[in-house]
Formats: sequence, structure tokens, C-alpha cells
Amino acid sequence: MKKYVSELLLIPGPTPVPAEVALAAAQNMMSHRSGPFKKLMLDLAAKLQKLLQTQNDIVILSSSGTGGMEAAVSGCFSKGDKVLVAAVGNFGKRWIKLAKTFGLDVEVLEYACGQAVDPSAVKAVLAKDQDKRIKGVFFQMNETSTAVLNDVEELAKVIKAHGALIVVDAISGFLASELKVDEWGLDVVVTGSQKAYMLPPGLAVVAVSEKAKKAAETSDLPKFYLSLKAALKQAAEGQTPYTPAVGLIYQLVAAVNMLEKEGLESVFARHERLMKAVRSACRQLGLRLLNENDRTASRAVTAVYPPEGIAADDIRKKMKDDFGITLANGQDELKGKIFRIGHLGYIDPKDVLAAIACLEITLSKLGAPGIQWGRGVQAVQDILTQTK
Amino acid sequence: MKKYVSELLLIPGPTPVPAEVALAAAQNMMSHRSGPFKKLMLDLAAKLQKLLQTQNDIVILSSSGTGGMEAAVSGCFSKGDKVLVAAVGNFGKRWIKLAKTFGLDVEVLEYACGQAVDPSAVKAVLAKDQDKRIKGVFFQMNETSTAVLNDVEELAKVIKAHGALIVVDAISGFLASELKVDEWGLDVVVTGSQKAYMLPPGLAVVAVSEKAKKAAETSDLPKFYLSLKAALKQAAEGQTPYTPAVGLIYQLVAAVNMLEKEGLESVFARHERLMKAVRSACRQLGLRLLNENDRTASRAVTAVYPPEGIAADDIRKKMKDDFGITLANGQDELKGKIFRIGHLGYIDPKDVLAAIACLEITLSKLGAPGIQWGRGVQAVQDILTQTK
Repeated sequence: MKKYVSELLLIPGPTPVPAEVALAAAQNMMSHRSGPFKKLMLDLAAKLQKLLQTQNDIVILSSSGTGGMEAAVSGCFSKGDKVLVAAVGNFGKRWIKLAKTFGLDVEVLEYACGQAVDPSAVKAVLAKDQDKRIKGVFFQMNETSTAVLNDVEELAKVIKAHGALIVVDAISGFLASELKVDEWGLDVVVTGSQKAYMLPPGLAVVAVSEKAKKAAETSDLPKFYLSLKAALKQAAEGQTPYTPAVGLIYQLVAAVNMLEKEGLESVFARHERLMKAVRSACRQLGLRLLNENDRTASRAVTAVYPPEGIAADDIRKKMKDDFGITLANGQDELKGKIFRIGHLGYIDPKDVLAAIACLEITLSKLGAPGIQWGRGVQAVQDILTQTK
Repeated sequence: MKKYVSELLLIPGPTPVPAEVALAAAQNMMSHRSGPFKKLMLDLAAKLQKLLQTQNDIVILSSSGTGGMEAAVSGCFSKGDKVLVAAVGNFGKRWIKLAKTFGLDVEVLEYACGQAVDPSAVKAVLAKDQDKRIKGVFFQMNETSTAVLNDVEELAKVIKAHGALIVVDAISGFLASELKVDEWGLDVVVTGSQKAYMLPPGLAVVAVSEKAKKAAETSDLPKFYLSLKAALKQAAEGQTPYTPAVGLIYQLVAAVNMLEKEGLESVFARHERLMKAVRSACRQLGLRLLNENDRTASRAVTAVYPPEGIAADDIRKKMKDDFGITLANGQDELKGKIFRIGHLGYIDPKDVLAAIACLEITLSKLGAPGIQWGRGVQAVQDILTQTK
């Protein structure tokens, strides 16, 4: 007998999709070269600007987030340009690979798993670059693989003082906490549909500053489908250089309307509450977190070590088999060593209450010592009932 | 008062989407790194192989068709390689632009609007290439912009004799008529979801031969998100290098099941019948076709000149305003000079009957001489009732 009837996806994307957003994909197709579609795209871009707190140009690429990252690299830099990547995990490594793929001269600041980028280290590297060879600095807002939130504001400050382009992968970070694109002076910000937008994967939304647009004008790296310059030119008319994923665009409209109604502050607060609840519950259950620093704790996902003697994969398997709850594995060298609890996008407090209760049962059944049922749940209850 | 309640999209993609396919996008998201998703992808690839009549590897890229075209160019060739593009319209030009973007040495065979590629001309170019510098030949199965169907089988024969890779953009052609990937020896075949698959845009399905896979192993052109090599490696395990568009994948499963049930022969016959019906009706109404050659007539779309003294754009506008029917414009130098009637994908004979009747009214109202209502419709009726 199957023990559950519904699935609960607690991974850092794709997140569950609200019915309203899911069904929006089923609307009749329209011509992507028609007036009504252009209007839809221009309205959508204006709403995305509000969410991103920016006046910068918005382009929507029909690709997953990585396509947006590639568009930033191939779109704003030129042969032989030097760039700095500050990497704190697997997605930081993706910036490095991408920049190398396009033949850029890459300097790397790398951090141990669970650590955030140290703005003063970035400052030090940039201070040494007196002839301004470094044309761009790349980092993650939120590093999904290690559940670390970087201090985008501080990083932006030190980079701004140098003058390099500030390129932020905000794919899993955007909407989970504050991101002030204009106030912080971010040049290229990449976001992805399957994260806190609450959409299926397939769209990358990129915000591009005037300074980055200028760089895009002269960039000589090879690009076609993901050409930022072509996308910017077309976006001004509510168009895309190539056929856009119309169904996903419909879904983005529906999701953005939901987010607008909820209000940015509420969206951030919702994510912060769930993050706190999951962290507190894990600690009550005696579980060690990969990133114990609450200040740099990811609002999107929490990475957890299993109790000694129990395999992380067994916990994930039992959560799935017994309760239909999908948790994420670690990536790369963390594969099998941790499990990750996603709490971004369309995740409700009730989901977290249930998930922690199921985790308590699972840990006991796997023989974890000292698991008192209800103690993790109480920690969640405490956070949820705090009035602040 | 609005004169209609429902829209009819008669453009060469996106095509209307069956409700069964549309709603498939609304299924619950699942982890794209999970066992069930891997199984879904492997099953889907096997079904796609049947439709493509091939044993070749199948990769599914989360991009529109152009992303698949780029993957073929950047994925199978190396710096300085010479390639031949046989171009009969706008999408032929896209092959040229793509190959030049990646620094390939491009020889071009170009044809006037409405003409198909002449296999003997390709043969002549390849015959001169005695030291086999030409590593690949690119062409369209169906050129959407000019409504021309190339003879893929004959082209493949002459290229096969030379030994270059055969790279076919079958985006708008696939499923509208026969395409025997293995029997004809096609190396890279690119298809796109918003055409006869009956899906929204956002997926490119690419079939890759062993020979092309070998070329992909050594290809040194820059690529990341659209890397064919990475996609091939992951596809063998039912995976993708980067997050796939899960909702569109669900829809592709639903569509492929519908197509399988219908049977390939019926799918081809359905497209051929509608093509014949539209062509015959246009001729009965005294309209000149861009491509008057029935042998090379596109099964996906028919390009039509307006009657003298009437603007193509006025016809399109009135069809939309009065009847909710969207026809396609011409592209590039044909913009405003022709209109195009799409008949690929989820288009029913009833749709064509209605569209021709509406076109009769529209042409009369715009002052076209000698339009006898019902005559175009009769031409459609004749084709639809032929027993063959």
C-alpha cells in the first residue's frame, strides 16, 4: 500500500507551482509577433522591474538560469578580458567554467563549503588591480549547493569603488530576500523561473544596467541564441530575437501578479520565517548545519548533515518512500554527505510543519539517538507564532 | 460588438495546442534529478526515436529551435572548418549567420524566394571539394519563410557520397511529411516543440548520429548551455546538463502519446491533405502562390500573394478583426508582400474550411474582383472528400 497520496517537493527548485500559475500555461497560444503579445511582454517587463527594484532593462530568455548566466558572460565581455569570480560552491564553479569557456582570463577567490564570500577579500584583489584589467566580478546572491547567502550589498560596494561590472547570479536568491538592483548598483542580475517565481523551469529573467548595455554593444565573444545584445534590442519592443516559450511567459505573468498582490516585503518575510523555522528545528533535533552562520544562512534552502552513522541518502529515500517528501542531495563533493531542505517559492508553513514531523519519524526509524517526536515541530511552531 | 468568441491561429508555429497537451504542463513539478524523471526522459527519448525513425541519440534542449540549430553548429564543428549552407529563405540565412558567428568558413548556395535547393548544385559544389575541406552541409527540411519543402532524401544522397555531416533544420518540417533519419543517413536533425509536435515553444529535440557524436567529441568551438556533447552524455542517463523545462517535457510526453496513437502515416496524410486543400482553394480564388511548384510545396504553411491592388497586411488585419483568424506575415524582404496560412500541428480540416470561407468574405470586402463565395470552400471540400 502506498502510504501517501500527494507529493511534497522540498528541493531548491523546481518549487511547487500554484494551480493558478500551472494552469496559465494552458491558455491558447498566440502569435509571438503580434501586437497583443508585444503589449503583454512590455507590461510583464514593467512588473518585473518593480520586483527587481530597478529601472534597468529586462530581458527574458527561453532557457534555464544557466542560459542567463551564459548570456551575461558572452554578452558583456570581450576576448581576453580579465574577470574575477568569487565562488562559494558549485554554482560559483559554473561562473568559472563559463568564463573559461569563452576564453576570459579568470581570477578566482574560492571558499570552503558553507562559507560566504568575504567582501574585504574581494576588495583586496580589486585594490591590486590598479590598471583596471578586471572588467567584471561574478558571484552568487545565494549559493544553492551550500545554502549560503552572500552579502550582495557589501560586495557591490567594494566592486563599485573599483568600477568592474557587477554580475550576480540571483537565480535561487531572488525574492527569497532583499535585492535592490538599482540602489546597490548591480549591472547584470540573472534570475530563473523555477525558483521563488514559482514557475516550472525554462525562463531566465535578466536585468541589465546602462553600463552593462554599453559593454554589450562592443562585446566580441561568439553568441547567437543567448545574445544579450539581440535580446536587449528586441525587448525594447516587447519582442525576443527567437521564438519565446509562450506558455511559460503566460505563467510568469500569472506568478508576477500573485507576487505583486502579496507584496515584496511579505514575500521576503515568508522566506525568512521558513528559513528560521527549518534551522531551529534541525538544531532541536541535534542536526549539524553545513552553514551554521545565521547571518549568511540561505533563505532558499538549508543544507543539513545526517546524524553520525546514518546515511543522508537513507534519510532522503525514507522521506520519499514513507511520506512522498523529496529532499535534495548534496552536489559534487557533498553528494551523499548532506541532505538539503528547500524552502523557497510556493512552500507553506504547513508544509514545513509536516516535513519536520516526518523527518522526526524518519530519523528515529533509522536509529538516530535522542530524537524526541514533536521537539522539532515545536521549534517550527515557536518561529511561526512569533509576532515580529 | 466583438464578432467572434474564439481565436484561430493559422501561423507556422506556435500551432494551437490540444487541451490534453496544454493541461499536461499543469502537473505537479518533480525533481529533475530523481529516478522517476530519468525514467520519464528515457521513455520519451525512445518514443521520439520512433517518430524520427531513428536509432540515433536524442537530446532535448530547453530552448527554442534556434538553440538546437546553434547546438548543431557549435557542437559538431571546429575552428576554421569549412561548411556549406544551402539556403532558400530566412531560416537558411540563420544557418549562415550561426556558422559565421562561430568563425566557420561558410560557402553558400542561395536560391530565390520560393525555390527549393537543387541537389545537383550541392553535388557540383561537393564534387569540387576534392580534399574534403567541407565538413558539413546545412539546409532546411522545410523553409517556413517561403513555404518550400526541400528534397531531404536526394540532398542526403549527394552529401553522403561526399562524406560531410548532414545537418537538417527540420523544425517546421518534421511530422508534416516523411523524414527517415536513419534510412536517409541524416547526422543532425533539429526539431522544435511549437510546430507539428503541437506544444508551446521552448524545447528543441535533436537527433544525433554516431558520426556526429564523434565530431562532437573533438569539437573545439565555445559552448556551454547548448553543449551537444554535455547533453548527449547526460541524455544517456535520462538527464540534462542544466535544469530542463519540466512542464514542457510533460507536454511533450502527452503530445508524443497522441502522435503515437494517431500513427505517423496518418499524421503525414493529415498535413498533406490540408496543404493540398489550401493550395487548391487559393488557386480557385485566383491567388498566386509564392511557390507554385506542387512537388516542393510546404506541408506546414502556404505563402500567398494578395490580389493586385490589395495589401497583404489589410487581408491579415481584416481576417483578425472580423473572424479572429491570425495569418502570418512575410519575413524580411517578403514582409507586407505576402501572407502565410499555417496548416501544421493541431489544425483540423474544419479550421481550413472556415478559414477559406472567411478569406472569401475578406477578399470581397477589400474589393478583390471575381471572388465567388463558396468556390474556395468547394476546392477544400473536394480535397477533403477524395478517398485516396
